Amino acid sequence: MEELVVIKVGGNIIDNEEALKSFLTSFSAINKHKILIHGGGKIATEISKGLGIEAQMVDGRRITDAETLKIVTMVYGGLINKNIVASLQSKKCNAIGLTGADGGVVLANKRPIKNGIDYGFVGDIKEVKSSVLTTLINAGFTPIIAPLSVDENGSLLNTNADTMASEIACAMSKQYKVSLVYCFELQGVLRDFEDKNSVINEINPDTYSQLKGEGIISKGMIPKLDNAFDAINKGVNAVVIAHADNLLAIINEQKKLGTVLKK
Amino acid sequence: MEELVVIKVGGNIIDNEEALKSFLTSFSAINKHKILIHGGGKIATEISKGLGIEAQMVDGRRITDAETLKIVTMVYGGLINKNIVASLQSKKCNAIGLTGADGGVVLANKRPIKNGIDYGFVGDIKEVKSSVLTTLINAGFTPIIAPLSVDENGSLLNTNADTMASEIACAMSKQYKVSLVYCFELQGVLRDFEDKNSVINEINPDTYSQLKGEGIISKGMIPKLDNAFDAINKGVNAVVIAHADNLLAIINEQKKLGTVLKK
Repeated sequence: MEELVVIKVGGNIIDNEEALKSFLTSFSAINKHKILIHGGGKIATEISKGLGIEAQMVDGRRITDAETLKIVTMVYGGLINKNIVASLQSKKCNAIGLTGADGGVVLANKRPIKNGIDYGFVGDIKEVKSSVLTTLINAGFTPIIAPLSVDENGSLLNTNADTMASEIACAMSKQYKVSLVYCFELQGVLRDFEDKNSVINEINPDTYSQLKGEGIISKGMIPKLDNAFDAINKGVNAVVIAHADNLLAIINEQKKLGTVLKK
Repeated sequence: MEELVVIKVGGNIIDNEEALKSFLTSFSAINKHKILIHGGGKIATEISKGLGIEAQMVDGRRITDAETLKIVTMVYGGLINKNIVASLQSKKCNAIGLTGADGGVVLANKRPIKNGIDYGFVGDIKEVKSSVLTTLINAGFTPIIAPLSVDENGSLLNTNADTMASEIACAMSKQYKVSLVYCFELQGVLRDFEDKNSVINEINPDTYSQLKGEGIISKGMIPKLDNAFDAINKGVNAVVIAHADNLLAIINEQKKLGTVLKK
């Protein structure tokens, strides 16, 4: 099986021009088949504010109403995605930018109302058409994917980028030996959030339960790790959570940096 | 040679939800290889206004400054392009949305300062990589292209959609028998703008000069027709300027509607 690296880059990197530039230089130098899934960052929120669109919150959760869907389509699918693609092209990486709608690659259902909460235009992924991505990769393209899916009625849907990455990694595991790397602004999963060097080098399902029980892993890291373990259980070969700066060392030099998840 | 239809749809259709829906239903029913290039419409201007960005004009010409480039990247490359793609997917047309940056398909130079006017981030097309489009078409995709090109430094550039369409049609003529159809909200090129039925059925270079001399063809129609004649001279088989509602009759039923340009 050929190798494929599926990389998710987080919003904090997207928001920092220098960090993004450096990340894209590393990404373009990866000498394997690769797919990038990018997060949204704060630009959508800033533009919403600029247009006077209030973030809709219900029980502390953000709601994607029709106006917000327009904004994320513009910002994730347009501004961020196309600037990443243009930048990679200038670095000789033959990038092609996609949302889940393009080629119908990520199909979703609009999230049903749960416990009285209507999340709005949010997609729960139903199917990743891996053949679309394989076709593009075989044709020499590097897919760059924005966190938007599409339903069968032709509505775009806001979709969690970590979930997009893990679902895409799972689907591609049928044809490739897939490594999934979550790149963000920290060195890995930290034992002590105040100590940036307290990286937990390895987590397996047992230690994951333990770390959650002790409150060491909490909040935003839980859905990320749930996605990651889900990917491993569905056939992804390796999952690493690491600092964006270490991407090339991990992939091209196979250095053990960041947090490695084991089955 | 296989046939390929390159279609440009104008901003007035984009701005009208019902007209766009109807156009996309027709487009999805075209039973030949096809490419769509879409214009921008008024949404970018509205969003600029909403964000308090003033349109920069020099000598009556719009300037694409850095803020405006962001807006058109969001609106053309994101909002309009991805909604068209999502809608076509729901109509069983395997659309894939591109800007000139994706696959490096439309390379341009930033327009040099002319007569003291700096147009800003505007692209003059240098090369259309037809092989990228051929690869996508052969893989079963229908390319949907936003009017943005890219330069070698990785900067996106605002680009006239009519020019994008004619340059793409020309480039594709090497491998396909290409028909180029400009779809808009009128029945064709009109002899009398007040009489919507005064369509000029055929224009050749001689009658074009005459019509311009008489002032019958003027203003915005001149660059459109210049692009169209340029395309015919560079190998495009046929160019038609027609109402969006007549697209299917022209393509699938080969009816002679709108204005046909002849060499």
